[in-house]
Order: sequence, then C-alpha cells, then structure tokens
Amino acid sequence: MNKKVYLDYAATTYLRPEVLRAMLPFMGEVYGNPASVHLFGQKTRYALERARAVMSGVLNACPDEIYFTSGGTESNNWAIRGITAGYTRGRIITSQIEHPAVLNTCKELQKKGFDVVYLPVDEYGVVSLGALKNKLTCDTVLVSVMAANNEIGTIEPIADIGRIVKACSDAYFHVDAVQAAGALDIRNYKLPQVDMTSLSAHKFYGPQGIGALYIKKGTRIHSFVTGGSQERGMRAGTSNVAGAVGMSKALELAAAEQPRESRRLSALRERLIGRVLGIDGARLNGHPVKRLPNNANFSFDFVEGESLMIGLNTKGFAVSAGSACSSESREPSHVLLAIGLSPKAAHSSCRITMGRSTRLSDIDDFTDALACVISDLRADGRDGKRR
Amino acid sequence: MNKKVYLDYAATTYLRPEVLRAMLPFMGEVYGNPASVHLFGQKTRYALERARAVMSGVLNACPDEIYFTSGGTESNNWAIRGITAGYTRGRIITSQIEHPAVLNTCKELQKKGFDVVYLPVDEYGVVSLGALKNKLTCDTVLVSVMAANNEIGTIEPIADIGRIVKACSDAYFHVDAVQAAGALDIRNYKLPQVDMTSLSAHKFYGPQGIGALYIKKGTRIHSFVTGGSQERGMRAGTSNVAGAVGMSKALELAAAEQPRESRRLSALRERLIGRVLGIDGARLNGHPVKRLPNNANFSFDFVEGESLMIGLNTKGFAVSAGSACSSESREPSHVLLAIGLSPKAAHSSCRITMGRSTRLSDIDDFTDALACVISDLRADGRDGKRR
Repeated sequence: MNKKVYLDYAATTYLRPEVLRAMLPFMGEVYGNPASVHLFGQKTRYALERARAVMSGVLNACPDEIYFTSGGTESNNWAIRGITAGYTRGRIITSQIEHPAVLNTCKELQKKGFDVVYLPVDEYGVVSLGALKNKLTCDTVLVSVMAANNEIGTIEPIADIGRIVKACSDAYFHVDAVQAAGALDIRNYKLPQVDMTSLSAHKFYGPQGIGALYIKKGTRIHSFVTGGSQERGMRAGTSNVAGAVGMSKALELAAAEQPRESRRLSALRERLIGRVLGIDGARLNGHPVKRLPNNANFSFDFVEGESLMIGLNTKGFAVSAGSACSSESREPSHVLLAIGLSPKAAHSSCRITMGRSTRLSDIDDFTDALACVISDLRADGRDGKRR
Repeated sequence: MNKKVYLDYAATTYLRPEVLRAMLPFMGEVYGNPASVHLFGQKTRYALERARAVMSGVLNACPDEIYFTSGGTESNNWAIRGITAGYTRGRIITSQIEHPAVLNTCKELQKKGFDVVYLPVDEYGVVSLGALKNKLTCDTVLVSVMAANNEIGTIEPIADIGRIVKACSDAYFHVDAVQAAGALDIRNYKLPQVDMTSLSAHKFYGPQGIGALYIKKGTRIHSFVTGGSQERGMRAGTSNVAGAVGMSKALELAAAEQPRESRRLSALRERLIGRVLGIDGARLNGHPVKRLPNNANFSFDFVEGESLMIGLNTKGFAVSAGSACSSESREPSHVLLAIGLSPKAAHSSCRITMGRSTRLSDIDDFTDALACVISDLRADGRDGKRR
C-alpha cells in the first residue's frame, strides 16, 4: 500500500504553506539582528514586534506579556524554574499526568528541596479539585496544570483550578497549553486567574524550534536563559525572527479557523471512536466528551501497542503508541497508569490524533486496517501460545 | 543614497540560499516528530542524525558528542550551568571580555555561592595566561574562555589555555566559539584539552534559533532544559529538524570555504584598517594581527559612537556601536573597558564586521563615508561648543 495517512498530529504538525510563505522573507532578503539599531536590524525588529503583537492580539494579552522561547519545553522549564528561583523551599503542585517537560523539571526541583505534590486524576484524567484544595498551603509557590493532556486528550478545568488557586493561596498558576493551543479557544488559557501559559508553534502548523510563554504583568519570575537583553531582558539569545513570524501567523490562522475546524474534527473523532469501540476488547482512554477534538486513545485487550503501531505503520497509518515524547521509552505511560490502567493495559494502547488533512475516508480506511491488524496480532498471539 | 551595505556580520549573517534549499523539504513535504517510531518520524529522525553526523565530521568529533540547542546563548548557559549543577561551591574561571551569555550566567552562579574569577586581558584583549595559572585552584570546576571576541575580534590562545587548565587542575574547559566558528578553522576548538564548545548557526549563514554544544565523551554534565528524552536524554524539547539540517549544511559550507574566505576577508580587513587609521584621531581596538579575519573595531577622538553609527546608517552603511547584543544598553562596552579604554573612548567606538557579500568597493565607499561623517560630527561638536 502506497497511501500514507498521518494520524499523529499531536506529536507534530506539518508547516502550513501560508506560514512558510510568511517566514520566507526572513530567511532570505530581510536579515539583521533585531537588537541592532541600524536599518537592517530595525526591519527585523519591526517583524519581531509585529509577530508579538499578533500573538498578543489572539490571546487578548498585551504585547509585553508575550515572550518568545525555543518551544513548549523551554516555556515549561522557564515557568517552573523561573518562579521557584526566588525561593529555596516551598510547595509546587502539579498533576500526575503532566508532560515530561513539567514532571521532570518538578523532579529536579524536588531534589533541590522543594515539596512537590502530584495531584491525582479520576478515571478520565480530570485533575481532582478536592485534592487541589486540600494540598494548597500558604507556602505553595506554584501550581502547574496542563490545559489538555497530550496522550489521552482530556481537557482540564483550568478556570476552576485557577479560581481555587487564587482563592486559597498566593501561588502563581501556570498552564501548559501546548496541546490545547491549536485545538481549543486559546483565550480560555489567558484568564485573570492564569499567570503563565506555555505555547509551542509546531503543534499548530507553525515551525519547530519556537514557542512562547505568556507571563501576566506583575509576575515575579526570574530569567531561565541568561545573557543578552533580548525579550526585554527576560530571555537571552538572538531572536529567531523567521520562527516568531511563523508562529504568529500559525496562531492567527489556527484561532480564526478553530471553531469550524474543531467541529469538523470532533465529528471525525466521534466516528472514529464509534467504529473502534466496535472492535472486540477495545476501550477508550480519557474523557468521553471533555477531550481534544482531534484526539482518541484506545487500549485493546491481548494486543501489544508497539506491535500494533508497527502493524499500522506497515499498512501506511502513522499513529503513536503512547506519546511521541516518550516513544523511545519502554516504560508504560504514566498518564495511562494515573487513570487506573494496569501496566499491561497501558502497554496495549494507541493514540490517534487528527488534523487539517484528515478526511472521513481516512478514518474509515484506518479503522478497517486497525481491525485487521488487531485480528492478525491476536491470531499470532494465540498461535504463539499454542506453539 | 539607495545603496545599503551590511557591515554587521558579527551580529547576524543572512541565510545562504544553499542552506535554505537544504531546509525547505523539512518545512513542507517531509514532516514528523523525530521521536516518533513510524515512517514519518523516522524520515525526520534520519535527517536529524545525518545533520549531527555532518557536524561531527566537520568538527572531527563523534556524532554523539554533538547536541543541538536553540542557539549559542543556550549552549553557553548549558555548559556553565550543566557542569556546576553537580556542585554547591567551587571556583569558575572566565575572562573579563566574555559574551554576556557567559558573563551574566556566571554572575547568577556567583549569587548562588560560586567563586567566579574574571581573568584580565592585555591591551589587545588577550587573556592573561599568568593570571590563569595563578587562579587555578583544586576546587576550580570550570574554565570558560571564548575562542574569539565578538566586539574586538581578538583570537584567544585556546590551545595554551586548555593545556594549562588540564596540567594544573581537574576543571572542565568550555570554549564559546560562537564568533570564531565560521571564520576560523573550527577543528581548533575541538582539541583534546577542550571539553565543550558552543556554536550558533546564524553566525555562519545558517538559520536563527539553532545552535549546538559539543560535549566531549565522559564529561559529567547535567541537563539544562529538562523534559523528554530528546538528544539522548540531555536536551529536552521536540527537535528543530529544519534548523538542524540548515545548521549542518551551513557549517559544512563554511568549513569548506574557510581557508579561502578567511584570506579574502583578511585582505579586506587590512585595507579597511589601513584606510581608517589614516583618519585623524582613529585607533584600532583589539589585536593588530591575532584577530578575526572579518573584524575591525575602532575608536575615534571627539566622536560619539552612537551618532557615528546613525550617521553611517543614514549613508547606507550598517555597522555596530559596540556589540549588537548590548546595542540597547547605554553602558560602555565591558570589553573596551577591559582592554584599558576610558569610558569616553569606549563610547566613541565602532565595530565593522564583513562577510561573504563584502567587496573591496564596499570598503572604499565605507571609509569615504566614515571620514565624511566623522568630519561632520566633529564640526557639529565644535559649533556646539562655540555656541
């Protein structure tokens, strides 16, 4: 089979041609360091600040609340390390299902003496508000919860979490909106009760290597990458002008198309879920309704996720067994364990994430192929046991 | 005058068309997260690892000694913070004329209790080997010295510094080769006595937003950006595939053309220096011979550098008053102060850095314009005094 169907948009999207077109002038005739005062520098400075203004417009923020970074992971590192750098001790509250960029950074701070609380989630992956209320102490310096989970797609009640954080503590509230940004209304993550929001361009058809951190005015945060005075002295390093221009264009397009595209993808997702749950021993992971429009995650009895992924790949379908970020790891997904799956069930899971090029026929072809691969794998398993 | 002449290549270069061509497939038809196991991911993984292999080939290193970062500033942060993260105290030795990415990072560590020694330099900007020998103690954990200075172009005796470090201590030796990489033979910075070398693509006609850190095998260094398992678990964040491909192509081209291009630029530089020193009250900053082929830095009596830069800009010549990284600051250059200039003389300086598109006629046109602007400024100054 020659047809290749990409169903791993949560790992990375392609770069939209419109975004590339916006970037190309800054990868050719228009060059200069935005920090330079001469004409060459000022042209790129103008483009950089315009990109910032576009981003802040979409987010309904001020331009000087937008900081460009090298990606979502750096944004998460910065938010967590930048807030806690002002303290030697204190509590950090996060959830058990955060992205490794948050979890592993929190673990580093734990080694340094911070008291890190990992909030439990329910069977659908929704963070426990009761646990949050119980764990918020007066020495809590930071709460970090993701807008939507990258593996199972569950949307977290960010507005409620933020209200609790602000009502019960002086802690800052950080939202990792890397997976949510292109798929949901991004303005939901720039609420009065949210102090910082992480974004990554390559999750919404922008370039890799560029991200942003929204930081609400007045937030006391230290720099993470130190050196020159770029980004108003807060993030050193020569600005990635083409990247910033591309990110702003991609965010602008994503926001404009989001209501319609979300509806389209939700319909595809419902069809996908309906057909896949028709397969014997299939189970949906994550919330049945409160989930990203483009995400479906399943476990299949008696099937190993890695083999399933390889079998589907052979048939031309690119999906993920777990998240791409942890795809090199053989550990069962920490997200699937947190929602109560056994290690075995977690190892038999598969994430399908759709995007702009996904059509109804892709979903139907995919589910046919999926049924076929699962049937083959189970037959092999039985043969294996019989031998 | 409509002609625009860019003479600020040290701030940033343009992206070479050959480099853009190498990048474009990865900004369009070839997409996927290199961490994904499926075919889309593996194609980009192959490109990423090929880029790493090209870089390591140029550096005469092993591929797994090359780590991609978001740029020179991150590489410098990583080297310094990553080595010292294993200690709570100890000495760090650097020089007074390092880039802010090194100096400001060292200052942060000073606040945390590290003992930072800033080695003096001579009148030409050459780091004092005697001071290094005196200051190396058994608790010195890191020595960081730049390969060549970004403002005055002076080339440091990296091989000698490294020999002293290794003979007299157990410290690691880091070299910030961001300015040197395209202009000098890069293999000089991957010597047995060098443990880490920082590179930035946009200084040698590669894209902005991508850099690398060479880390010698066996170096005990902590991660700086934590999260996923990218870059063999050492630098988290989705890989910037197009950036890595572009950087490797740019480095390959720069290395191949370096001997010839360095000779060409050195000849232009000599002509530039000869003509500029013909102007009354002009003085060369930095070493007369041991300097980057493309760099000249001057001070002019009775002229304010900022006004000079603006005057030249009006005539179509883009140069820098100080380094681009500090161009927003009104502080006199720390480099010029370190080589013994008065704050006033430091404020009357101008950096000219040439590159691939610089022609002999540009140098002649520039020096004519320079003489004219200086003469005007001095006349204004006298008129001003007379009034």
